[in-house]
Amino acid sequence: MCGIFSAWKVPEAAHLTYLGLFALQHRGQEGAGIISTNFQAGEKFLGHRGQGLVSNIFSKPQIESLRGMAAIGHNRYSTAGGSHAKNLQPLWVESSLSEVAVAHNGNLTNASIIRRKLEAEGSVFQTNVDTEVIMHLMARAKGTAAERLESALAEVEGAFSLVVLVREQISGSAKTETKLFVVKDPHGLRPLVLGKLGDGYVAASETCAFDLVGATLERELKPGEVLEFSENAEMKSWFLKKKVTPAPCVFEWIYFSRPDSHVFDESVYEMRKKMGGILAARDKEEGFTADMVIGVPDSGIPAAIGYSQASGMPFEMGLIRNHYIGRTFIEPHQSIRDFSVKIKQNPLRDNLKGKRIVVVDDSIVRGTTSKKINQFLREAGAKEIHMRISAPPTISPCYYGIDTPKESELIAANKSVSEIRDFVVADSVKYISIADLYAGLKIDRPMCDACFTKKYPIEPKDALARSSC
Amino acid sequence: MCGIFSAWKVPEAAHLTYLGLFALQHRGQEGAGIISTNFQAGEKFLGHRGQGLVSNIFSKPQIESLRGMAAIGHNRYSTAGGSHAKNLQPLWVESSLSEVAVAHNGNLTNASIIRRKLEAEGSVFQTNVDTEVIMHLMARAKGTAAERLESALAEVEGAFSLVVLVREQISGSAKTETKLFVVKDPHGLRPLVLGKLGDGYVAASETCAFDLVGATLERELKPGEVLEFSENAEMKSWFLKKKVTPAPCVFEWIYFSRPDSHVFDESVYEMRKKMGGILAARDKEEGFTADMVIGVPDSGIPAAIGYSQASGMPFEMGLIRNHYIGRTFIEPHQSIRDFSVKIKQNPLRDNLKGKRIVVVDDSIVRGTTSKKINQFLREAGAKEIHMRISAPPTISPCYYGIDTPKESELIAANKSVSEIRDFVVADSVKYISIADLYAGLKIDRPMCDACFTKKYPIEPKDALARSSC
Amino acid sequence: MCGIFSAWKVPEAAHLTYLGLFALQHRGQEGAGIISTNFQAGEKFLGHRGQGLVSNIFSKPQIESLRGMAAIGHNRYSTAGGSHAKNLQPLWVESSLSEVAVAHNGNLTNASIIRRKLEAEGSVFQTNVDTEVIMHLMARAKGTAAERLESALAEVEGAFSLVVLVREQISGSAKTETKLFVVKDPHGLRPLVLGKLGDGYVAASETCAFDLVGATLERELKPGEVLEFSENAEMKSWFLKKKVTPAPCVFEWIYFSRPDSHVFDESVYEMRKKMGGILAARDKEEGFTADMVIGVPDSGIPAAIGYSQASGMPFEMGLIRNHYIGRTFIEPHQSIRDFSVKIKQNPLRDNLKGKRIVVVDDSIVRGTTSKKINQFLREAGAKEIHMRISAPPTISPCYYGIDTPKESELIAANKSVSEIRDFVVADSVKYISIADLYAGLKIDRPMCDACFTKKYPIEPKDALARSSC
Amino acid sequence: MCGIFSAWKVPEAAHLTYLGLFALQHRGQEGAGIISTNFQAGEKFLGHRGQGLVSNIFSKPQIESLRGMAAIGHNRYSTAGGSHAKNLQPLWVESSLSEVAVAHNGNLTNASIIRRKLEAEGSVFQTNVDTEVIMHLMARAKGTAAERLESALAEVEGAFSLVVLVREQISGSAKTETKLFVVKDPHGLRPLVLGKLGDGYVAASETCAFDLVGATLERELKPGEVLEFSENAEMKSWFLKKKVTPAPCVFEWIYFSRPDSHVFDESVYEMRKKMGGILAARDKEEGFTADMVIGVPDSGIPAAIGYSQASGMPFEMGLIRNHYIGRTFIEPHQSIRDFSVKIKQNPLRDNLKGKRIVVVDDSIVRGTTSKKINQFLREAGAKEIHMRISAPPTISPCYYGIDTPKESELIAANKSVSEIRDFVVADSVKYISIADLYAGLKIDRPMCDACFTKKYPIEPKDALARSSC
Repeated sequence: MCGIFSAWKVPEAAHLTYLGLFALQHRGQEGAGIISTNFQAGEKFLGHRGQGLVSNIFSKPQIESLRGMAAIGHNRYSTAGGSHAKNLQPLWVESSLSEVAVAHNGNLTNASIIRRKLEAEGSVFQTNVDTEVIMHLMARAKGTAAERLESALAEVEGAFSLVVLVREQISGSAKTETKLFVVKDPHGLRPLVLGKLGDGYVAASETCAFDLVGATLERELKPGEVLEFSENAEMKSWFLKKKVTPAPCVFEWIYFSRPDSHVFDESVYEMRKKMGGILAARDKEEGFTADMVIGVPDSGIPAAIGYSQASGMPFEMGLIRNHYIGRTFIEPHQSIRDFSVKIKQNPLRDNLKGKRIVVVDDSIVRGTTSKKINQFLREAGAKEIHMRISAPPTISPCYYGIDTPKESELIAANKSVSEIRDFVVADSVKYISIADLYAGLKIDRPMCDACFTKKYPIEPKDALARSSC
Repeated sequence: MCGIFSAWKVPEAAHLTYLGLFALQHRGQEGAGIISTNFQAGEKFLGHRGQGLVSNIFSKPQIESLRGMAAIGHNRYSTAGGSHAKNLQPLWVESSLSEVAVAHNGNLTNASIIRRKLEAEGSVFQTNVDTEVIMHLMARAKGTAAERLESALAEVEGAFSLVVLVREQISGSAKTETKLFVVKDPHGLRPLVLGKLGDGYVAASETCAFDLVGATLERELKPGEVLEFSENAEMKSWFLKKKVTPAPCVFEWIYFSRPDSHVFDESVYEMRKKMGGILAARDKEEGFTADMVIGVPDSGIPAAIGYSQASGMPFEMGLIRNHYIGRTFIEPHQSIRDFSVKIKQNPLRDNLKGKRIVVVDDSIVRGTTSKKINQFLREAGAKEIHMRISAPPTISPCYYGIDTPKESELIAANKSVSEIRDFVVADSVKYISIADLYAGLKIDRPMCDACFTKKYPIEPKDALARSSC
Repeated sequence: MCGIFSAWKVPEAAHLTYLGLFALQHRGQEGAGIISTNFQAGEKFLGHRGQGLVSNIFSKPQIESLRGMAAIGHNRYSTAGGSHAKNLQPLWVESSLSEVAVAHNGNLTNASIIRRKLEAEGSVFQTNVDTEVIMHLMARAKGTAAERLESALAEVEGAFSLVVLVREQISGSAKTETKLFVVKDPHGLRPLVLGKLGDGYVAASETCAFDLVGATLERELKPGEVLEFSENAEMKSWFLKKKVTPAPCVFEWIYFSRPDSHVFDESVYEMRKKMGGILAARDKEEGFTADMVIGVPDSGIPAAIGYSQASGMPFEMGLIRNHYIGRTFIEPHQSIRDFSVKIKQNPLRDNLKGKRIVVVDDSIVRGTTSKKINQFLREAGAKEIHMRISAPPTISPCYYGIDTPKESELIAANKSVSEIRDFVVADSVKYISIADLYAGLKIDRPMCDACFTKKYPIEPKDALARSSC
Repeated sequence: MCGIFSAWKVPEAAHLTYLGLFALQHRGQEGAGIISTNFQAGEKFLGHRGQGLVSNIFSKPQIESLRGMAAIGHNRYSTAGGSHAKNLQPLWVESSLSEVAVAHNGNLTNASIIRRKLEAEGSVFQTNVDTEVIMHLMARAKGTAAERLESALAEVEGAFSLVVLVREQISGSAKTETKLFVVKDPHGLRPLVLGKLGDGYVAASETCAFDLVGATLERELKPGEVLEFSENAEMKSWFLKKKVTPAPCVFEWIYFSRPDSHVFDESVYEMRKKMGGILAARDKEEGFTADMVIGVPDSGIPAAIGYSQASGMPFEMGLIRNHYIGRTFIEPHQSIRDFSVKIKQNPLRDNLKGKRIVVVDDSIVRGTTSKKINQFLREAGAKEIHMRISAPPTISPCYYGIDTPKESELIAANKSVSEIRDFVVADSVKYISIADLYAGLKIDRPMCDACFTKKYPIEPKDALARSSC
């Protein structure tokens, strides 16, 4: 997934970016980076990138060394295999355009095709991140930074929420000017919001990043919109030329965004509560009742609250999440059953014993985690387990930045609901239907729901679409 | 506070202790330590202690170097000022009793008196931890390890849940025998539970530690009980001679223990829900209603659920806790209002706007944190804030191991409830009365409630009772 | 300066490269990196780069993760300002040529001109290292890897000893082939030696790297020579087309190489001893005598031994070097005079007291260090200090990879020998004349001595020749 | 071995102690610690101890947190097995004497006897360091700190150079006074020197520590001398009552001290040169000549210079020591012959080829290192190797603080010189005789030479004399 943040014309821009990335940590824990600049002609961009959590990557001296009134930052998601220091963002190059740094949330679906073409023309690539093609296209384009950006983005397809910091030569002069572009792709697949902070601006993947830095939400960017910030001009808004039907990702509401964020003009928490309500309404129709409703922490909690309110069945805590976990936890040689889940979640035995329980979760991907959780809910004494998934079945992979496994590993692509129920050792399993989802959330605009429908708004041209974020 | 754990006659005892300490991490984040042994006469105890979180202190090679079938461990709570590597537990000495290692949860109220007496007699102290006097008293006593332990504990006063690993000389022989003692003080102030694991035993401050290692709860230790484990004998249970009225700490239910633990023979989660119910009942009598109930994460959540169920007002999430925080987070130079709270908690703006809110928390200590939280709940749009505290007012410090500030800093010891309401910028503040607490929780046994009543079951003899844990 | 190493068709190639880099640590302490490969078509190159000393950068798991029978490595020298993780070598890109990794010792004197041209044509640069232009030129060239390398190197000027690891497409096939090129520039400015190890080959900046890995010296590469190693063919030797008069750097003998290395077909130790002999011969002619000869550790020692043997004056230790220094040493607030030198060197007071001392050093650059050393030799009791420099005066900067300051900071470019003597508080200062140097060392071939003569074998076209290494 | 340092009434005392310990790093690389104080009654001593090198243990904030005008410090030597954080010095306890901190160089030969007695009387020990008994004896003694120290030291036997920082109760008052004691045992086995720095004093194991901090040598302490520094009085010198024949350790001159130190009133460098001279004189008598003389770095160099000057054979460098080694160096799986020596030393092949070489070293302990060195000197081309040891054969272990192996592992205790010659693959091996050593060094006082003679000045009562340092 990844999270991005930018700060423009605010003091301690890099420090605020650091706080913004911290608030967006749930969007990527593999690594992070910040690039800053102080609009000085001679001075190069300053930057630091590292692996791990934001709070571990940046020390006080490092944050303070990233001087300047403008900065961009990036949280990288942990994708299988591709973990390598060289793939950390923001990417940062020098070219005909002086300096360019880019942070990207999303995934380009024709990146490898463009890459092979550029390589054939003599370009060298230093990362395995699809984002790098944007920098090469900009370097090979002509005109101003804005013109080059527009030209480059006309060639790429897929999902891209971007923050782009550029130092460009002022035409007919030896001077340079620093610019910041905040960009959302024409489909508007990933969220990106604009905020105001003092005399300057911030942008972020989610509004929760504004709360910590004290910024106020201006608005969500429109699909295809580019915000252009210049040293010596007001903020400009213009649009990429490609005209397509917007398709914001419905999964941001279901799972990825933080519940305290406002995403695609909706409260994530409210949307999740409604999803719980949809599930409860169907159960009510069928006269189903249970002793209590619990959510799988943390993402299942809001839908569980919604289910409880709509059904009248009491909301309870059923699992406690242990938040002190580092990245690697040492397992003993003697086998502890379901260790990987137990180390993160613990059932409230006294509360579960002998009870018929509705367990609300946001998705069942491979089914293995759900199975382990249900197993130890049973060991803890639960009499019946009724899983309610606050989304339709996940049947196809995402090519736009979410790291879902391939179809053959998705349980809902390969098993019926009753087979899934047996696999995850539940007494019943229910999903939301596509129709219920749209009706219940009152969605009256097109969205991307390809993971549930296989209807991809953009054809994934790369045989193996590189998972960027 | 601190947490303790022991493992006896189980493979990878130190590794299980590490997992147990991880589950007890909420009881102390300043440091931790483990001492293990393999019952070998010639081989000394093995140990490692360090500052920080359990997951950071122990690497795989370090855990594996702590060989043996028996181990004890300790989590140290961060107490003001006394943070120093030399104060980490388990303490571990050599003496006439070969080797002794002790981990302690609680606080001795006459430790400095005994210490001055021992110092006058020539003892040297290497730590500032009250626990060290127990080791000196054992070293100076006569007889078997059990006799020495009994003799030493007859002299100390206060709260002590202990795990004591000893290698003692077998009388009339050159051989040694390893023993483990699991001890609860006669007042039974701190929790301590016994569990069964395979052919061996574990003990822990709370049952949540058993769940992770796969042990089953046998029972809570009785006040004054000593469990004695020997290499070549069955577990023995005997009692310290001092006869006093038991006084388990009611605050363990209110705040300190994990909700998924079973403490003093009760489910912590259930007790907290009941506390919420008591508050709701009083509000109901007065016809008070609000738009929603939220809990201050994490400890206020169960009582908020209880309040919601009893009152019928909907339970909602109002604050999101950020769990990625390390120990030091770098604040920018430009002031961010209430930064220290904002970095940990974020309000769900969309959900709070224009609402009349019941905010349930477990206590108001100095009042400064409550004030900050209420301030940004208001900034986030809350119309009215009604604080409900799931306990009586905290008016006096704890001398038995909880790190409450002195009386002059306790807001409830110095201000009326209406003054507190004004200070924390709430529209109303209500506590549970002592009488309601006992009636509502159906407590029919004496407990320690000194922090609410100033009725101390044990006179704190030390002018400055050292805060151990 | 930097050091480079390569291993071809030897087991644990990366591990041997790590040892080779360790032996070459004196050529660069800022950072290091290794790229390895196992000739597998589908598998990408493996690599790790980091800042600091070789022994700190690579852990056991990291070394072992760099699998394969071929590897190249690089030690980076600490150059002012340009210290940044992104500048660490080997550089490593993907392009039309599949994968290319390069490690470079030397400096290109027309890199920024080429870079500006490439940028204008749309190339993006990710580092500030001159070496990167070679990779772009190869990517834009046509033909086989060898043809592209030849074409790229025909465009660059300056000093370049290179190891280049390439995976190239086999013409008319989907298969790839791995190749290693070991290259010395036509002037042969920097040393580069070929060794044999088992069935495979190693190459290194200096022979001292062969001793540790157990390789035997085959020979020094010839100026302009390219050694080409292929998966399926014997080693080939061919030459770059540019015909120029060779100009190996005389300063490698004077200062940079390790005394136990064999460089440009000579023993470094022997050359340094001869330089001492030249100085002694001149002093002898003038009837000069002193009580003892000392060398400034470590590089001045061999010349001091040579001076002693030629003059008959006794060689003694006068300064002890402390080798436990890390990179940053904390200075107290109270001023300690000449702290930066004292922390590294300590005089043998008892041995110096009242003595007339010849102090042999390899160069006086700014004069500040020599001044500090002489000051504390005097404080330690030395009666007279006669500096003897085992080289001609350094009057002009190096554009071929040695990090000498600009002319205005070079004391010998701005002061007479007697002024230098006064500045460094010596009783006399003598250098070797150019004529004596060539005669004394029996040099009968052209060499680069531009730092002493301003006669640059290659015109430095870049206004500011980027210091690569 | 270990090194100790103290600073009294000097600003930034802990920082100077840090520099002093850095200069004494050769005496111990396992760990280090510093305790400081500012003479404030209420304030406890401040301290930090850690494992590894001085430059790695102390960060800037840590050094700066050790406030005060008085400090003591300790470098710990790496002894087999006993490596554990709890054994780091200075030891630091509280007792009837308020606070006591001790740093010790030497070894007590009756420590375990005293320890068993103290344990029987109820003392508890927290370390495995013999030094701890001194603190217990002081705690159990009566009277002033000075009286207690005298009483405690009357009971212990062995080698002890100590710095002792004490806060004692002023008799008949509630106030405390800080004192520093600098102590050398009656045999004067280990060096300890007093220096002057501004208005205050420093003490150190060797004078090289004074040079770095800018102190001037006052004098070596006399055997049995105690220097007493008080807050409100001049420095006092008094003597321990035990009268014995002094026996300073001759091995400090031979091997342990730094050549730039002045130890036992002699220049270490001069003494080592004389040892080389003694060897040369005997060889001269026998008409022995060779092509060159080399020393095994670093400790063999001064004696090699002395041998060269006395014999007329040229001194040369034969081995280069690599100083970039960290504590653990990763060996490849494929065997590299003599890796452990090769990683530290490299022969100058060009200089050795075909030569008959005198190799001067300070000792042959087990013989294995000498064998490896000689093996690769031969591989490097040496024609003949004549080992000259600048000491008599080491035939018995040290009980006074030097970590020599037991007799069964000492090659000279088990083999004849000709057998040793064969074992170390030399052409000849010669030692200095005891008589030559005393005559050649003009030693006219009794010294400890027990490692060469088995004549122990103090009977080692402990079956296993604990190796302190």
